[in-house]
Amino acid sequence: MLSDLTPLRVSLKEREILSQLEQLSARSGSHSPSLGTMQQLIPEINVDIDSCYLSNPLATDLFWSHFNADVLADPQLFKRMLEAYPSQNREIAERLSTALGIDANHLFIANGATEAIQAVIHNYSSHIHISIPTFSPYYEFAGPHTQVTKFQLDPAKNFAVDPEEYVESVLRSKADTAVLISPNNPDGYLIPDADLEWILSQLSSLRTMIVDESFVHFADRPTAPGGLPTLTGITQQFENVTVVKSMSKDFGIAGIRAGYAIMQPERVDQLLAHGYLWNTSGLAEYFFSLFDRSAFLTEYRQELFRYRRFIDNFTTATARFDFVRAFDTSANFQLMQIHADVSAEVVTALLLLRHGIYVRNCSDKIGLDGEFLRVAIRTEPENAKVLDALADILS
Amino acid sequence: MLSDLTPLRVSLKEREILSQLEQLSARSGSHSPSLGTMQQLIPEINVDIDSCYLSNPLATDLFWSHFNADVLADPQLFKRMLEAYPSQNREIAERLSTALGIDANHLFIANGATEAIQAVIHNYSSHIHISIPTFSPYYEFAGPHTQVTKFQLDPAKNFAVDPEEYVESVLRSKADTAVLISPNNPDGYLIPDADLEWILSQLSSLRTMIVDESFVHFADRPTAPGGLPTLTGITQQFENVTVVKSMSKDFGIAGIRAGYAIMQPERVDQLLAHGYLWNTSGLAEYFFSLFDRSAFLTEYRQELFRYRRFIDNFTTATARFDFVRAFDTSANFQLMQIHADVSAEVVTALLLLRHGIYVRNCSDKIGLDGEFLRVAIRTEPENAKVLDALADILS
Repeated sequence: MLSDLTPLRVSLKEREILSQLEQLSARSGSHSPSLGTMQQLIPEINVDIDSCYLSNPLATDLFWSHFNADVLADPQLFKRMLEAYPSQNREIAERLSTALGIDANHLFIANGATEAIQAVIHNYSSHIHISIPTFSPYYEFAGPHTQVTKFQLDPAKNFAVDPEEYVESVLRSKADTAVLISPNNPDGYLIPDADLEWILSQLSSLRTMIVDESFVHFADRPTAPGGLPTLTGITQQFENVTVVKSMSKDFGIAGIRAGYAIMQPERVDQLLAHGYLWNTSGLAEYFFSLFDRSAFLTEYRQELFRYRRFIDNFTTATARFDFVRAFDTSANFQLMQIHADVSAEVVTALLLLRHGIYVRNCSDKIGLDGEFLRVAIRTEPENAKVLDALADILS
Repeated sequence: MLSDLTPLRVSLKEREILSQLEQLSARSGSHSPSLGTMQQLIPEINVDIDSCYLSNPLATDLFWSHFNADVLADPQLFKRMLEAYPSQNREIAERLSTALGIDANHLFIANGATEAIQAVIHNYSSHIHISIPTFSPYYEFAGPHTQVTKFQLDPAKNFAVDPEEYVESVLRSKADTAVLISPNNPDGYLIPDADLEWILSQLSSLRTMIVDESFVHFADRPTAPGGLPTLTGITQQFENVTVVKSMSKDFGIAGIRAGYAIMQPERVDQLLAHGYLWNTSGLAEYFFSLFDRSAFLTEYRQELFRYRRFIDNFTTATARFDFVRAFDTSANFQLMQIHADVSAEVVTALLLLRHGIYVRNCSDKIGLDGEFLRVAIRTEPENAKVLDALADILS
């Protein structure tokens, strides 16, 4: 990346640190090195805002306040939570069932959504058709005997999934599995309900149709009273659909590792018959138990609506930027394309060095041709700093 | 079980609760229902001592005191630990490497030992030969296409593994995988070093030889200065050996889910190339980071030696019991055979109802013919109560 510095003014000291960052990124493969890792290796970096991490910070605060009142206030309970075996998969599924409006026997509780993705791909897929750009585990987790084929999304069309082109591409590929993330990571495109329903109806003969709704809480969707935003009203018409859901994004608790998948009961039975015995920690079990409380969900919805306004404010501001192309988003992040002469890697590094802001450089995302950043939307004061910093470096 | 009550005096009220417990056990399959689950469903039960859970309670206290000083004293750090993505598998392996004296590229970090067992059986085994009785995931995790064959251990020989008979049995079975747990769960038999070395040398052509050393800290073994008890001095001579290690037993932190396996670097590479991206929680990462501190390990060894004396005292006492046969153990639990006329399930329930003591009823263990209890050894005051309660009900 150091050869791409020309269009930007960079000091000698910055140049040196950029080179260290380059080495670190190379070692992390297709996922950004964690902030902790970066700070450990390059102490000069002082991270003020983590705009790489896609979470609702208001929900983290809400979780934290309940956790303090329920758990930290009762040290013996907390100690026991760390000491004792957690409950097994099905018991936790029971607790989640009511809040989700999904029968417990359809629920596979996972140590983060990535475990659910791995379970489905390793067990119910021999050829997977992905839409690129995408979340990399969907192709990385395909083993040596699983074929991967691709459908290219088009930035010129705002990464929209054209239903007819998509269905034709899947069927032509002869894949037994296809994945739609909606809203998609990294572009934030939400497939309209009618399109999704039509696509799923056309692909109902696939062995496995994965619909990843990890970011759906952030989309502007009608929600049943007392319910949470979801695509399951559509997906549950189709037996072959597996819904994947991370809890790290909407609840901002990636360190706890909590996610789930909704699938045919026979598949849940098979998976649990041969594994996943105690795959949920005591802390994740506590988190799932919060779903049993309608008071918690009411508070969560309030925080979600408040956060959605932050997203609106952020995207309204970036729409006025003439130095990046910010794509429409239904998620809590925004993909931005910068001028082809400027390296996204260098911009990412400069945001970090000069402003302490960590955004996702998308150079390693397959299916993205050009220079792209993915910026997580956070609190209002943080967003203001991020917007200023982007303008400072790029305008 | 209610038909087996005759040899014991049981009240009407006890009889009623026994019937509820029976239903609960039936639903939990081959693993005991968790204490939490039992207490939720049968509020009459007041559990004072969990002698089902196989852990060193002194180590839990040690962990808890470090956790308080390092994490609970710094709420912002703790909140960040719950909020942020944990480090990836290889970074955690690096931290564990020095304390274990094992190259990081041989280490697969797992969300509890059960995840490591699942990974190995699902990926590197098509026919597994187990020694029964055993830890049930070793056969439960075998999928529909994995054959399971068995070597029967003999209570009359204290469940000792006869090296020649064992090797012959494995080779005759044509299995590509065999498992030795040493000390074994549920009987506590430790395979002598010379026997283990000879067995492994004879089975070096197997695709996968699993040695589970989850309980080895409790065995009386020579340990390198500053090191932890381990069988790896023997196992690392053989390329086909995978060592499985739970951290729940020695460190008493089952709720955190932490374990690892040691295997050929090519296998670690393969597993991580197609999964296990963020399979460790922030809390487990903190736990693994304690291994980087020699001061922590020094304190741990002191607590381990103190706990080993509790084990000695307990087994000395049970050796004098004439109403049960307590098997020699190198682990932190003891298997006890009771009179064939008395149901282990009823004794377990009565220990719980009358004394608030929860022990493991082994009725569901395959390869155990007769009535057996497995009793975890805990603190001195707890052990005294357990010994009294056993005498009260059985003598």
